[in-house]
Amino acid sequence: MSLVALKVAQAQQILRESGVDCWLVQFAQETGLHPDPVQNLLVGTDVTWLSAFIIPAQGKPIAIVGGLDEEKIRMVGAYPEVIGYVRGISEPLTQTLARLNPSKIAITTSKNDHAADGLTLGNYQRLKAALRGTLFAKRLVSAEEIVMKVRGRKLPEEVERIRTACQHTEDLFAEITAHLRVGVTGIAIREFAHKWMRDRKLEPAWEASGCPTVPIGPRSPVGHVPAGNIPAAPGDLIFCDVGVVYDGYRSDMQRTWYLLRPDESRPPDNVRRAWEALMAAVTAGVARMRPGSKGWQVDAAARAQVVKHGFAEPPFAFGHHLGANAHDGAGVLGPRWERYGRAPFYPIEASNVFATEYALPTSDPYVGYVSVEDDLQVTNGGVEWMVKPQREIGIIRTA
Amino acid sequence: MSLVALKVAQAQQILRESGVDCWLVQFAQETGLHPDPVQNLLVGTDVTWLSAFIIPAQGKPIAIVGGLDEEKIRMVGAYPEVIGYVRGISEPLTQTLARLNPSKIAITTSKNDHAADGLTLGNYQRLKAALRGTLFAKRLVSAEEIVMKVRGRKLPEEVERIRTACQHTEDLFAEITAHLRVGVTGIAIREFAHKWMRDRKLEPAWEASGCPTVPIGPRSPVGHVPAGNIPAAPGDLIFCDVGVVYDGYRSDMQRTWYLLRPDESRPPDNVRRAWEALMAAVTAGVARMRPGSKGWQVDAAARAQVVKHGFAEPPFAFGHHLGANAHDGAGVLGPRWERYGRAPFYPIEASNVFATEYALPTSDPYVGYVSVEDDLQVTNGGVEWMVKPQREIGIIRTA
Repeated sequence: MSLVALKVAQAQQILRESGVDCWLVQFAQETGLHPDPVQNLLVGTDVTWLSAFIIPAQGKPIAIVGGLDEEKIRMVGAYPEVIGYVRGISEPLTQTLARLNPSKIAITTSKNDHAADGLTLGNYQRLKAALRGTLFAKRLVSAEEIVMKVRGRKLPEEVERIRTACQHTEDLFAEITAHLRVGVTGIAIREFAHKWMRDRKLEPAWEASGCPTVPIGPRSPVGHVPAGNIPAAPGDLIFCDVGVVYDGYRSDMQRTWYLLRPDESRPPDNVRRAWEALMAAVTAGVARMRPGSKGWQVDAAARAQVVKHGFAEPPFAFGHHLGANAHDGAGVLGPRWERYGRAPFYPIEASNVFATEYALPTSDPYVGYVSVEDDLQVTNGGVEWMVKPQREIGIIRTA
Repeated sequence: MSLVALKVAQAQQILRESGVDCWLVQFAQETGLHPDPVQNLLVGTDVTWLSAFIIPAQGKPIAIVGGLDEEKIRMVGAYPEVIGYVRGISEPLTQTLARLNPSKIAITTSKNDHAADGLTLGNYQRLKAALRGTLFAKRLVSAEEIVMKVRGRKLPEEVERIRTACQHTEDLFAEITAHLRVGVTGIAIREFAHKWMRDRKLEPAWEASGCPTVPIGPRSPVGHVPAGNIPAAPGDLIFCDVGVVYDGYRSDMQRTWYLLRPDESRPPDNVRRAWEALMAAVTAGVARMRPGSKGWQVDAAARAQVVKHGFAEPPFAFGHHLGANAHDGAGVLGPRWERYGRAPFYPIEASNVFATEYALPTSDPYVGYVSVEDDLQVTNGGVEWMVKPQREIGIIRTA
């Protein structure tokens, strides 16, 4: 059974648990240009014309697609009934719904979870037009919580792929460590990493220009920026944020190194202070990661340590789900700020996989950021790291 | 000036022509997972948090983005004003709109053009919530026609990239022709084509499993299907549908070959009948392609020839725009069927680039499809082919 078929079966179970009898998973067209965020999990291939993928709580999943896409959807094997149309989708769609007669139809839309926000406004209006005059026009509900559960509850097959992606990333970090020296640039590291990935048929986990991104010392911009051309110098902090795609699933990790000055045998006080604060924050946050915790509680525990150690609050969240996407939706381990909507209020479930990431700027003087990101699964007993997390700052001797 | 900056300047001109004083081009987040269809043309990079890209008819384009994305957007150079935020976008967005005070705000949404249907329902609701209580809540209009013009009116820099993609594809077809022989499979052709592309740093123009797709003889499924493992035999028709991406722009072309039986010196009557009908249809369609023609008129001219030659009407459109995407929106050369919405009613403009494609099944007996697709630009004087179109069926000798 393909992973898409397994996730569709899991979705049916979640529908039954949620008391929703039908989910219109994807109602979209030309997904090569405008992929629906649930497509990789629950559809498995692109569609060209306006298509409806319907998962009922009971019975067979049904796909309604443009005629020339019919054979391709059959080949995926997750939708036992495939209906092809020529002129328009309204008629086969309303006929199919009449046959299922669901009391609720969940649609993939959300104000809180980007990864559950698939339906476009234009297609929503086309759906409403198709359902006009039927009983179903008033039965539409948001699938937000269903999508969150389908994404968040990782099957063993998914965890295995994420773990393999993390193991590759651990190997890549070892290679990168060997490349760090005075004069190296972020672009040089990135080009090396891309070649290393190509040789292993891996791909960058996000936009290639910034995967990896390698801010070097106090002279680099930090954030989601392309790798830069600033050469490393003794006394610089360097961090690297990178992930790879392995069989559709991703890693997302960060490591920090310090380039010793010729007269130093260990990082200076300002670097050690930042590192200690970072480790205290990560430890406190991870300690709160258990089934039932809300994302904001995890972030708050970490954030409090940052403040206690005399640093300013990070302007971002402590962590995010990880899976088929680097930022996998399904809630966030973040503060209760407008920009995160209701995502920080969603509880952690056993089997969820997260990337925990925090970063702090050094001060007195500023020589760059310390930044660590590690991937883990929450279990009923605690957490299980995908690979060994970084607990000591990397030291690069330059003399 | 980058191509994105040139397209943003073109958009400002189109806004002035349309009497719309402000366009909220993209209001989206996590575009790595869920790319907005105008992003590659008018933004140029991914964003992580909910972001607003605002193009006023007059004055400087403005981007409002999550703080860590700020530097990256500055680097693209198309938005001279970049505003970073930490907690939420509502405040900087409403402040910016108050400063611009537009009488209309176009939003990227459409029921007719998939490539203009960017705004999700969830983000539309977030936008409405942010604008609640302001004058702007009632000033939202669809940017459909603006997007169609920005996409459809190709700049010389865009045409040059499409032409280069087509020239590469012409070279690829020559290589594929040399590989066609008894026993070859679609998968073998695809794997060869992918290696050929990798060696030239080109990428498939759509989902790689079906780019190329190579239906062989009467035993292959036809349509948007992955390449298959059916071996070619004498008496088979083979067609290949493939395109490449060159510097962000695409080709989309098809060629047809016939594998002679040992006793044949030319294709049999059934193949020649289908080919003649196809050529008549293509010639008639292309003859209607001039500024001001509606897409459905072009399709109808081609469709009439198919019927006149005794074949059933094709269950798809005669052609589509081509550019940064294989199916580039901005209208379609297709029939007035529900599934195409208002797209067939949109007039052709000089500078538009199209792929014209039609396919017919042979009959008495069925030995596969004849299928041809060529790319061209409409000018004031007629059409200009990107590369030489196919006018004779390819012949492969098997003895």
